Amino acid sequence: MFSFEIKDRDAGGRICNLIIKENKLETPIFLPVYNPNIPLITPEEMIKEFNVKALMSNAYIIYKNEELRKETLSKGIHEVLNFNGTIFCDSGAYQMFRGEIKISQKEIIEFQEKIGTDVGVMLDVPSKNESYEETKRSVLETIERAKEWEKIKSSKNVFWEGVIQGGGFRDLVEYSCRRMREFNFDIFAVGVPPLLWKNYEFKSITLQGLTTKINIPSNKPLHAFGIGHPIIFCFLVAIGYDIFDSASYAIYARDLRYITEYGTKKIDKLEFLPCNCPICSKYTIKEIKEMEKNDKIKIIAKHNLYTILKEINIIKQAIKENSLWELCQIRARNHPKLIETLFFLLKDNYDFFEKIEPIRKRKPIFYIGEESIYRPEIIRAKNRIKSEIIPSALNETYPFQIIFPTNFEIFKFDGKKYSDLEKIRIIADYQFDKGIGEKIFSDKVEIEKSKNGRIKRIWNENKLLATIRARDGFLALRIEGARLLHKYTNPLKYRVVISDEEIKKIVSEGKNVFAKFIEKCDINIIPKEEVLIVDENDNLLAVGEAILTGREMMVFKRGVAVKVRDSINRNK
Amino acid sequence: MFSFEIKDRDAGGRICNLIIKENKLETPIFLPVYNPNIPLITPEEMIKEFNVKALMSNAYIIYKNEELRKETLSKGIHEVLNFNGTIFCDSGAYQMFRGEIKISQKEIIEFQEKIGTDVGVMLDVPSKNESYEETKRSVLETIERAKEWEKIKSSKNVFWEGVIQGGGFRDLVEYSCRRMREFNFDIFAVGVPPLLWKNYEFKSITLQGLTTKINIPSNKPLHAFGIGHPIIFCFLVAIGYDIFDSASYAIYARDLRYITEYGTKKIDKLEFLPCNCPICSKYTIKEIKEMEKNDKIKIIAKHNLYTILKEINIIKQAIKENSLWELCQIRARNHPKLIETLFFLLKDNYDFFEKIEPIRKRKPIFYIGEESIYRPEIIRAKNRIKSEIIPSALNETYPFQIIFPTNFEIFKFDGKKYSDLEKIRIIADYQFDKGIGEKIFSDKVEIEKSKNGRIKRIWNENKLLATIRARDGFLALRIEGARLLHKYTNPLKYRVVISDEEIKKIVSEGKNVFAKFIEKCDINIIPKEEVLIVDENDNLLAVGEAILTGREMMVFKRGVAVKVRDSINRNK
Repeated sequence: MFSFEIKDRDAGGRICNLIIKENKLETPIFLPVYNPNIPLITPEEMIKEFNVKALMSNAYIIYKNEELRKETLSKGIHEVLNFNGTIFCDSGAYQMFRGEIKISQKEIIEFQEKIGTDVGVMLDVPSKNESYEETKRSVLETIERAKEWEKIKSSKNVFWEGVIQGGGFRDLVEYSCRRMREFNFDIFAVGVPPLLWKNYEFKSITLQGLTTKINIPSNKPLHAFGIGHPIIFCFLVAIGYDIFDSASYAIYARDLRYITEYGTKKIDKLEFLPCNCPICSKYTIKEIKEMEKNDKIKIIAKHNLYTILKEINIIKQAIKENSLWELCQIRARNHPKLIETLFFLLKDNYDFFEKIEPIRKRKPIFYIGEESIYRPEIIRAKNRIKSEIIPSALNETYPFQIIFPTNFEIFKFDGKKYSDLEKIRIIADYQFDKGIGEKIFSDKVEIEKSKNGRIKRIWNENKLLATIRARDGFLALRIEGARLLHKYTNPLKYRVVISDEEIKKIVSEGKNVFAKFIEKCDINIIPKEEVLIVDENDNLLAVGEAILTGREMMVFKRGVAVKVRDSINRNK
Repeated sequence: MFSFEIKDRDAGGRICNLIIKENKLETPIFLPVYNPNIPLITPEEMIKEFNVKALMSNAYIIYKNEELRKETLSKGIHEVLNFNGTIFCDSGAYQMFRGEIKISQKEIIEFQEKIGTDVGVMLDVPSKNESYEETKRSVLETIERAKEWEKIKSSKNVFWEGVIQGGGFRDLVEYSCRRMREFNFDIFAVGVPPLLWKNYEFKSITLQGLTTKINIPSNKPLHAFGIGHPIIFCFLVAIGYDIFDSASYAIYARDLRYITEYGTKKIDKLEFLPCNCPICSKYTIKEIKEMEKNDKIKIIAKHNLYTILKEINIIKQAIKENSLWELCQIRARNHPKLIETLFFLLKDNYDFFEKIEPIRKRKPIFYIGEESIYRPEIIRAKNRIKSEIIPSALNETYPFQIIFPTNFEIFKFDGKKYSDLEKIRIIADYQFDKGIGEKIFSDKVEIEKSKNGRIKRIWNENKLLATIRARDGFLALRIEGARLLHKYTNPLKYRVVISDEEIKKIVSEGKNVFAKFIEKCDINIIPKEEVLIVDENDNLLAVGEAILTGREMMVFKRGVAVKVRDSINRNK
């Protein structure tokens, strides 16, 4: 059992259910690396104190320790580590890369299968990102290794990660993806060259991630190998990474370095503990400084892990609140190189975000810095209007209801007074296409308003066509409105086609549309957009909002693709 | 015993020792409000779980409860609250203002003295900030109350807070300060109208604080009444507030609102806990949501208090690292109104910050947003150069060594190659005054460099004139260099004058100069600047770096004013 399903999203980020065998994980997820030879925080502590549900260990490290190898072969890795969550197991590529003794891919893959790891990693060939040629070799050799992996693996009980190489070289990353996606990996992982991290090359790290994201199927989880610092997580989630793993919490601790979401501090340079985790609430900085070294390392490792896991939660909550860009804007202030990265993401990657960003969000945009105007939602909205001047009819519609500081001007409104009918037509033109407004809202429609004077519902001959959402000012079509949108647009525009008889029946009665039942669809559908569900003859069955993009609908096997709002046989 | 002493500083913020009777507090400090009628977190828990050293209670609330009044009169407030830290006691002005029964100032002040409160508050007259006239009345009546207070108070064992009113009206605040500073209050408090907070009028709140700060003596702690949200603390510390108190942690909890440094969230809207405090590490969001209401309130109150106290530590650590502006820039991203406030502080208040900002800092400035170029350190540096083009000789000197994103240009350097001699002269001209470089560094000086090629020491005939700090590129004068600066500048420029014979002796032997022994000084001295310590006849005794501004040197009674680096009789 391996399944991956999008539950919620914001920017290019997503919250997904990832089910591996009997365990349900939720991404974005951070896997603490556990090295059984230098146990700093035990798997038992990870579960009890940190609520960790999955960790990353290393098959190579277990393998090369004879005693541990034998024990793990006989008891299985879950029992040896005393961890009943999901165990990801690295193959040792990085250790071998650093010059340790080599073990063949065959040995390490068979070993991973025998010890009962849940997710294994092919034995890739890392690169230093030192030169184009060296990086190219790592790409090519990793592809050869993938071919080998395909022949070796035999257990149905281990799921596998394929590794994308190419470092900061866009064409190499593209080539790596193009070849690696031919193999049936369950997860794709990106080998982030340590040098990029060490040199604060955050922009290159995101370039590598974005290039990968664009070139591998979106229904596969994407894993950033060895990334374990909270200052970068939100950017990597915003471009679509789902999984992180790192031993950073322990490695930094051994150097007596204390991780914060603002950067890393040497413990000796701290005079106050800028944290309230259980460790930092229990001890004073003075007490920590005076501890015996091993105790100090353990304490700092725990603090570090608390901090890393907190950031993952902050990011997930930001996705729920649709404030992931705002979180990136906050985190970007931790280093000028992150400002550079933020501008790179926003200014150079509109094409990527345009296809994936929800069309409307749960909260208005906050203008919190000059980069706010480059947010994809704003560029997209301006492109839709095709004019620098925005009709005032849209001033309560996302993203034009942006909250901004006094005396700032983000959008130029025309300042005109529009009638209610003009207003809903302009919203429809903005939301769908120029001219749709007049077609779906004839002169005869009746407009119902709420007590505070806002347009609430639009009726035609006692039939409800649509409502206007207070939160984002978008039209939510009912089936009668959908009939008109359907009538005045050509297939496949806004359409999702289903052909299974049983599914057609239940969808027309109001059930949601699951991705796996979609036969074809308008691949330009973007999340939260209005979607017309039709049968193979373009007969309208239902209307709803997209959870997935059109492209995702075609590749995802799990999860809801369209949340149905109204349907032709709703009351049956 | 009441003493207040600056230990460290950044922007307009400061870390101070505040000693009240036997207890030593450190500011900035947050005083949790404890209401004995609705105890949510007990004083005992505040000590044990939160390491709270001072709290705020309310004499009025105790007084109007007959049983509690009698008990407190007989046992004293420390015993009744079971709290051995410092107890600040509000007078009930705000409760009476909200329409509760009135008690005379005489009653409440005498009561505060009798129950043994450590710090009392005069009975001020709050304002709603609704109109100029209403606010003016509150200013005038509060002044009358201060006159009354002066006659009533009799205990030497209670220290008193005087309250500045005036709300968002600058002239009223100025008038309030001018009159209130005539009374001998130990602490000044600002009554922040709740309406300003409720309406997110952060700019007005900082305007009120800045106006107060400028108009009350800098040696008095400044207290913001009733401010208890972490999103605003760093701004208020940056303008010079020292003390905060609030019941927010409990009030928000009763509304099931969860405080974060990013804003307040309704607990029901949270799907993830974006925090790792002991509460949020112990419970899952699901468990909290399912709790019985009173348990839930208590749990959230604790989380809220952990979050508030953490922010104070984050701010103090930022002052230590000289990154308080960067912290404000990060926090400003939490709301457009905070962006507005940040721009207001930077663009409209240069005159205030220019006088108080250290001349050099422990780390280079990080460019992290368009507002960075308005930082007072940058404006001041540009003003000193008197040109848009900066000599490249200064590219390792604060703030010209700013770290900025690739392709950004913050300073235009002239790109010239300067000789070592030219370089040190340019640094001296920048650091002191045009022409000083040539005077203190003659053509004969010898320049010693470190292995990496940086200028390290400057000698003249085997006498060390100065060193150049690697961290900030500023000259650190030795006594021989100081003699030249002394020779070529007129009193009182850069000078601090001491006349006590004993002090003159020990300072000339290398001891630091304490504020209380300074007879007069150059009031334009800014923190971290080079200072010449002279006797009443302008004979040079020592050289060092300013801890206080010249203005502060004249009013502070406690603490080091100048850290002496070298002196005429150093080896004696």
